Amino acid sequence: DSKLKLFSLNSNNPLAQEIAEEMGVELGKSSVKTFSDGEVQISIEESIRGCDVFIVQSTSAPVNEHLMELLIMIDAFKRASARTINVVMPYYGYARQDRKARAREPITAKLVANLLETAGATRVIVLDLHAPQIQGFFDILIDHLVAVPLIGDYFSGKGFNSEDLVVVSPDHGGVTRARKLAERLKAPIAIIDKRRPKPNVAEVMNIVGNVDGKICILIDDIIDTAGTITIGANALKEAGAKEVYASCSHPVLSGPAIERIDNSVIKELVVTNTIQLTEDKKSPKIVQLSVAKLMADAISRVYENKSVSILFD
Amino acid sequence: DSKLKLFSLNSNNPLAQEIAEEMGVELGKSSVKTFSDGEVQISIEESIRGCDVFIVQSTSAPVNEHLMELLIMIDAFKRASARTINVVMPYYGYARQDRKARAREPITAKLVANLLETAGATRVIVLDLHAPQIQGFFDILIDHLVAVPLIGDYFSGKGFNSEDLVVVSPDHGGVTRARKLAERLKAPIAIIDKRRPKPNVAEVMNIVGNVDGKICILIDDIIDTAGTITIGANALKEAGAKEVYASCSHPVLSGPAIERIDNSVIKELVVTNTIQLTEDKKSPKIVQLSVAKLMADAISRVYENKSVSILFD
Ligand SMILES: Nc1ncnc2c1ncn2[C@@H]1O[C@H](COP(=O)(O)O)[C@@H](O)[C@H]1O
Ligand SMILES: Nc1ncnc2c1ncn2[C@@H]1O[C@H](COP(=O)(O)O)[C@@H](O)[C@H]1O
Repeated sequence: DSKLKLFSLNSNNPLAQEIAEEMGVELGKSSVKTFSDGEVQISIEESIRGCDVFIVQSTSAPVNEHLMELLIMIDAFKRASARTINVVMPYYGYARQDRKARAREPITAKLVANLLETAGATRVIVLDLHAPQIQGFFDILIDHLVAVPLIGDYFSGKGFNSEDLVVVSPDHGGVTRARKLAERLKAPIAIIDKRRPKPNVAEVMNIVGNVDGKICILIDDIIDTAGTITIGANALKEAGAKEVYASCSHPVLSGPAIERIDNSVIKELVVTNTIQLTEDKKSPKIVQLSVAKLMADAISRVYENKSVSILFD
Repeated sequence: DSKLKLFSLNSNNPLAQEIAEEMGVELGKSSVKTFSDGEVQISIEESIRGCDVFIVQSTSAPVNEHLMELLIMIDAFKRASARTINVVMPYYGYARQDRKARAREPITAKLVANLLETAGATRVIVLDLHAPQIQGFFDILIDHLVAVPLIGDYFSGKGFNSEDLVVVSPDHGGVTRARKLAERLKAPIAIIDKRRPKPNVAEVMNIVGNVDGKICILIDDIIDTAGTITIGANALKEAGAKEVYASCSHPVLSGPAIERIDNSVIKELVVTNTIQLTEDKKSPKIVQLSVAKLMADAISRVYENKSVSILFD
């Protein structure tokens, strides 16, 4: 009989704590230090021999630090005779480098998958990968959770009339995601289809679908510098939208993001806590939903060898 | 017929330039950028199809950044159809984490070897690994260069009388290295043997060998915070040494190192350029010897499929 042990690294300790509370377990004892020269030193401060170990770590910024911490901790668990090493990675960094778009480009999302396997991970639990195909980058088991139900429930709670709503994809690549949210809200979809009429001419925002007089809910997987989403929100307003909400799974929010959101026509930005919002990333417009229960359920089901796909809807 | 292409990453561009000049080649065109969220983007800006590629990168601080840059670049070369991918790593970071000294410790030096192989490196050229056993962490070919001849030639050039000299190992682990330098200088050796007589009592410096009235040359592989070397130098002076020189292959020089060296009895610190000395790491006491010619010779010999071990003495 094996035992479950849950550990947290540094990228998202509040989420790890919440998951532990949901599960009624204590976080395992470990420490991460850096030597004077910047090298990471990990120590596991309790026995995990024969255990099923789960490590909570998002590879958010600083991504290279967080990834190396994770690889080193996996190595330590492997050498300490863990039975299984399960990586719980609510946010998977480098996911946007998932294909060779130009000659001689790396595919860093695949490299990261290989590095995790090489270090000794036996299973990975992720949420809303930038492309679901990244699941196929792994030869080990991977469980792919989704935040759409969580985001859907939040907007349902607002009590809008379905007829007043439209769910909007900020680009043609995100239509499937928008459709999933729209189904839950029994609302139609619209798409912002940016086109550059000629080279070196400004992009034109074509809105496909009816947004006039509607409450629009923009949805994306990642909001990074928030350029796409704030420009899209403007275009919706100009096309007659009554109100614009925005939502995403992963609040990367780098560079000018917070300023752009604060100054935008977006009424509320709904995100999850796959990435911790540090002090410089707070805004009165941001509502953060917790994935702790979802993650806790997935961990328990993996540990009990039950189907995780039941959590996908 | 394959072509040699030499590329540099960011950790030690001056050394890469020098190596290129020694070899009479141009550095290959590539760029390393970071996206707004801190993710690294590498682009290789010339064809390397079918080429023997050499990448110069020390994994000095910030080690995790420099290591990830390297892994991503290797991935890019692999996918761009390089014939061989040779990593020239004058300084191998994480080398001190080369064994499980306590329960549940990682062996990060081995992890790094595995990561390089997984990314696609086909051969590695290193210099003065913290422990020569790290060579065995690789399943791919590894060439292990040494800086002792360079350091020996420098001290020979000072024209000291052999009878006045003694080469000193700052600890019992470094005696073999000290002996190699001593042989070149036809000098005897001494050892600083730190002992803690009882727990919680200050360490005592026992000097094994005769240093009274002598010119001492301390030698280590890495000087990091410079605690060991400056305390050792003091002990030598107290034991009657006339002058104390210090030397090492890898000037990590983190934290208080420069201050300690400047304020120490050390007359001159002789290092190599495996690690770039940034502005905050300069000191009038430091003399930096170049490994460029050694590295250039090794690269040429690997490319021409000749023995590299001839460079080891
Ligand atoms: N961290 C990043 N920040 C911004 N852009 C990125 C990042 N990583 C990859 N990309 C680029 O984003 C594009 C992929 O986004 P997408 O077309 O939405 O899948 C590619 O052109 C990548 O070069
Ligand atoms: N980057 C580092 N800075 C300082 N100490 C380290 C570092 N990496 C490993 N160590 C420690 O240094 C010791 C190895 O040094 P040595 O005994 O000289 O081989 C081990 O106890 C390590 O935990």
